[in-house]
Amino acid sequence: MQMIPVAVGAPVDEIDTPALIVDLDAFDYNIAHMAAFTRANGVRLRAHAKTHKSPAVALKQIAAGAVGQCCQKVGEAEALVRGGVRDVLVSNQVVGVHKLQRLAALAIDAKIGLCFDAAEQVEAASRAAVEAGVTLDGMVEIDVGMQRCGVAAGAAAAELARRIGDAPGLVFRGLQAYHGTAQHLVGVDQREAAIRAAADAVRASVDALNGAGLACEIISGAGTGTFMLEGTSGLWNELQAGSYAFMDTEYARIGSRDGPRYTEFRHSLFVLATVMSTATPGRAVVDAGLKSYSGEKGLPWVDGLEDVACTGMSDEHGKLQLGPRAKPLRLGDKVRLIPGHCDPTINLHDWYVAVRGGRVEALWPITARGASN
Amino acid sequence: MQMIPVAVGAPVDEIDTPALIVDLDAFDYNIAHMAAFTRANGVRLRAHAKTHKSPAVALKQIAAGAVGQCCQKVGEAEALVRGGVRDVLVSNQVVGVHKLQRLAALAIDAKIGLCFDAAEQVEAASRAAVEAGVTLDGMVEIDVGMQRCGVAAGAAAAELARRIGDAPGLVFRGLQAYHGTAQHLVGVDQREAAIRAAADAVRASVDALNGAGLACEIISGAGTGTFMLEGTSGLWNELQAGSYAFMDTEYARIGSRDGPRYTEFRHSLFVLATVMSTATPGRAVVDAGLKSYSGEKGLPWVDGLEDVACTGMSDEHGKLQLGPRAKPLRLGDKVRLIPGHCDPTINLHDWYVAVRGGRVEALWPITARGASN
Repeated sequence: MQMIPVAVGAPVDEIDTPALIVDLDAFDYNIAHMAAFTRANGVRLRAHAKTHKSPAVALKQIAAGAVGQCCQKVGEAEALVRGGVRDVLVSNQVVGVHKLQRLAALAIDAKIGLCFDAAEQVEAASRAAVEAGVTLDGMVEIDVGMQRCGVAAGAAAAELARRIGDAPGLVFRGLQAYHGTAQHLVGVDQREAAIRAAADAVRASVDALNGAGLACEIISGAGTGTFMLEGTSGLWNELQAGSYAFMDTEYARIGSRDGPRYTEFRHSLFVLATVMSTATPGRAVVDAGLKSYSGEKGLPWVDGLEDVACTGMSDEHGKLQLGPRAKPLRLGDKVRLIPGHCDPTINLHDWYVAVRGGRVEALWPITARGASN
Repeated sequence: MQMIPVAVGAPVDEIDTPALIVDLDAFDYNIAHMAAFTRANGVRLRAHAKTHKSPAVALKQIAAGAVGQCCQKVGEAEALVRGGVRDVLVSNQVVGVHKLQRLAALAIDAKIGLCFDAAEQVEAASRAAVEAGVTLDGMVEIDVGMQRCGVAAGAAAAELARRIGDAPGLVFRGLQAYHGTAQHLVGVDQREAAIRAAADAVRASVDALNGAGLACEIISGAGTGTFMLEGTSGLWNELQAGSYAFMDTEYARIGSRDGPRYTEFRHSLFVLATVMSTATPGRAVVDAGLKSYSGEKGLPWVDGLEDVACTGMSDEHGKLQLGPRAKPLRLGDKVRLIPGHCDPTINLHDWYVAVRGGRVEALWPITARGASN
């Protein structure tokens, strides 16, 4: 367990490192910007808790207008319901009797949904719901181009929807139509092409549902990289973005019409690190490595220091190279790193340190950290 | 927090997933194999807790002959001392008054050491030790080729050692001479060349120490990839290997004289996952992704299934491709994945599920999980 890194109210200089920092001005901007978009376009926001793993963040999103949360794991749903969230969709398949029993138990206190891509899953969830005396919302996941989970668009989707509708304890609500890989395609044209193809898959499925006499109330999907496409498509009516609250280098690198950076949202998430070694001129080593930020999307970016770049990461160290224009870094200096990938980075920490105006305004516990089962 | 994934004594079929599995037969082999090596060569083992993060594992290594543990973080040292370990070296620099106070407090109950590569660090640690009324062991870290932390070999090392020896509350014990990048060089010749160069740096430093009239009691370093080189060098007398207890794909890929795989130790560490989607023929999706294994060293390997390979990983999913010789995978089937990098993988979990002969023999809490500050 990570030591509580600072007291609420303390100046930011007192934050022990490594620590996960949320810049509240940027965070509030992001929450408001997405809320304004969904309001203006008449779509619902079901923000993704797989990213933030914290009821504290969820409740802020809901206060700004989100209808609820989605998540990927039963353990995340448990953390959300315990933390006061009353509408949770597991945007994923749930396999295993014990997991389904845990999920059904949550439906006593909250509105709970899950996704299906096999008849066997529908039968198992129906049994768990009936045993618990609850009703679960069922979504059919269709593969809209990600090639991961989901049935084929069209007739197969309608057939599975019919099974959900017929199953005791389940109610068919709509389609889970999320294109994960599209979120990270570099270039606006690539993302638009991917979501156009996804829209064709959605249309074919809605047609098949209607042909079978089934209403499709919800079409849910989209992420931070493509939400403006699904959100203005006239098809999707529920958006599942999560990273928008924080941003990371992977999203920054997907680019926009205006340049090489995607600037729809501001960077609000940082790993705060301390310089712990300056033994070699031109190099500074900080105390945060792969156990404080995830590395599979590349090296973190150094925030706000001219001509300083992270050139190496190991388990507990980040190596910074100082170029000719860099100001010297001294032992004890604090450095803010922007992680490559926000979701698995947040999952390494137990606390968000929420800062504003040079002070620690709040500590938000990351109660679904590690809730992977 | 991760739900406790199973009851002790249960059959392995009942383990909820994702779960971190330790195969005890392989683990015991690894512990015994390293213990036999160190005994035969008259060197000490100070096994690295940065890998396992658990006093349960530490105490098994110590029972097999290890003199104690090393670790990288004060939080890890706290977890070890609380768990009964009485000899801990932080094989790293510790910067910050609060961290040094926490470390010094541990020295009331245990023998505690740390590393230095700057005079300023020596002064700060001395103050913390004096204030707590304790003595801390001091090691000079020299850069033996890793180009991260550490002073230059030779005169600079002797100068820093003198400062440690003169500082109230500190005792100079020896050299921290660890070559991290050498551990993962592919090819035996490359690893040998790196450790030959490291040995030159150690010799130059010992000569400088002796020239200054300073005794160098301990030369500590080495890891799982090169321990047999340092351990038979006649220079190093303390080994800091950690991954040897578990192995991972990165270590397997460094190769040996006999072939493309490094087979000194057995794979004892697995992420157990469940098949949760089989909607597309030839593909199975499992419920473990980047929040259950670290991805920066590439895709995990699938253990024990013919012609099945992991071809994709996302935050909560692993995508398996089934070749023509693969047996079909069904919903609910369990799959064992070998992670790319054991240290950051273990840091994602709260429990080791220790299994033998098809049953769960023990649950070991990973109490230093997330103890990064």
